[in-house]
Amino acid sequence: MKIKRSERLIDMTHYLSEHPRELVSLTFFAERYSSAKSSISEDLVIVKETFENRGIGSLQTVPGAAGGVRFIPGIKKEQAEEALQVLSDQVSKSDRLLPGGYLFMTDILGDIHLMNHVGKLFAGAFANEQIDLVMTVATKGIGIAHAAARYLGVPVVVARRDSKVTEGSTVSINYVSGSSKRIQTMVLSKRSVKQGARVLIVDDFMKAGGTAAGMKNLLEEFSATVAGTGIFIESEQESEERLVEDYISLLKLRSVDEKGKTIQVETGNYFDRVSSFLKP
Amino acid sequence: MKIKRSERLIDMTHYLSEHPRELVSLTFFAERYSSAKSSISEDLVIVKETFENRGIGSLQTVPGAAGGVRFIPGIKKEQAEEALQVLSDQVSKSDRLLPGGYLFMTDILGDIHLMNHVGKLFAGAFANEQIDLVMTVATKGIGIAHAAARYLGVPVVVARRDSKVTEGSTVSINYVSGSSKRIQTMVLSKRSVKQGARVLIVDDFMKAGGTAAGMKNLLEEFSATVAGTGIFIESEQESEERLVEDYISLLKLRSVDEKGKTIQVETGNYFDRVSSFLKP
Repeated sequence: MKIKRSERLIDMTHYLSEHPRELVSLTFFAERYSSAKSSISEDLVIVKETFENRGIGSLQTVPGAAGGVRFIPGIKKEQAEEALQVLSDQVSKSDRLLPGGYLFMTDILGDIHLMNHVGKLFAGAFANEQIDLVMTVATKGIGIAHAAARYLGVPVVVARRDSKVTEGSTVSINYVSGSSKRIQTMVLSKRSVKQGARVLIVDDFMKAGGTAAGMKNLLEEFSATVAGTGIFIESEQESEERLVEDYISLLKLRSVDEKGKTIQVETGNYFDRVSSFLKP
Repeated sequence: MKIKRSERLIDMTHYLSEHPRELVSLTFFAERYSSAKSSISEDLVIVKETFENRGIGSLQTVPGAAGGVRFIPGIKKEQAEEALQVLSDQVSKSDRLLPGGYLFMTDILGDIHLMNHVGKLFAGAFANEQIDLVMTVATKGIGIAHAAARYLGVPVVVARRDSKVTEGSTVSINYVSGSSKRIQTMVLSKRSVKQGARVLIVDDFMKAGGTAAGMKNLLEEFSATVAGTGIFIESEQESEERLVEDYISLLKLRSVDEKGKTIQVETGNYFDRVSSFLKP
């Protein structure tokens, strides 16, 4: 049975959203909808326009027999501004303040709508990079890693603080936490990263950058490359240098006033580092 | 500017997929597309039919001034069978066998396509239940929790083995692991679960059910209710009883033969427990 254009558009949109960055052949869609390739091509023109207009992403067309179409999630600059505002408003709520000036962030990291924003922001920032997987360290970065990975269409690997029997053989490194100067251990299963993989490192928080630098060192043991580093919130560093320079941060924690119960948060270096957005 | 139907259908599909179980008013869409509510209603009929035909989910229409439409992700029985087959094929690959008969599963739990299947399967299973949040215990269940939460449109909370300063005040319980009989601790931030919340517990693995029972006990401290328990893979239990009876498992590990390097996996109790699927 031939499928109507409206049904094709709806299902294609859903299919492409669930398969970001995957090359989908016109034949696949033609068979899925018992429709001519010429109709599918027309559909894809409409999908492409709408995805770009609405800031959902872009559609890359790969010509030739082995070709097809690839959905690259993206973001418009104004959407990124809005999303960062939403995140910043959340983080700066004064009831997050914990004794000692720590911030309670667990609810944010577990909020799937906020994590969707985070995933879109990182996927947009790395839209033109080849990324093979997203890496983080247990536990708090995992939600961020899954969000980014879902929009990038790649797997997540999680380094741990301790080695578990269910990880099989592992590679472990010791590193010095940049802010506390303590020696810490990070362990990654040997099977989880292929040689030459291009890895996006993500984490929820960065102070001196010791953990991010540790992840980078760990990846070197796998002969893998850091394709980028994405941090949800960095804290202001004055005197000392960061151990990692090349990173994208969504937010920056400027100051925490425990007595006055205020938290000052601003946009991180996102707009300094990210230059390609979907057209407004 | 008036927006064409094709663009509306594409954007609506994308919007609804990203906002599962959320009540969206017709006014919202009418304003978003500068279109008459009557046109929006017609669009939604097409979206509803396609979502049902394609096994994406159902659209609930809530009448009246405060009404609108709600997208409930679902799954067809045949899709569930296929998804479980894909998962089972993955788990039973003999190269997962680790010394001691343990299974390496980290790659599966980090594979976003497989996690999408898992999320859809759990969301489909609990499509008719009120769920306010998804809970798991660190570390391995977190990917599953985020996948399920994304299709259910609710937040994730993660219990930890240890208490961290960034969790604020916490509630902790001791429980006896059902299989190893060891006493373990589980900690949950006080702010993360509201009184009366209906919680879906998920975990990657269940043997005797000690961890799931522990999560249930922990939730009782919050006066929250277990709305359901979803397990990725349960292991066969013969002699002893399970500490948790009311759960849905996707897969069941029947036997592991370390010498012969074979892993026997079958479908869990999913089809015994889940009765409502989208129409074929």
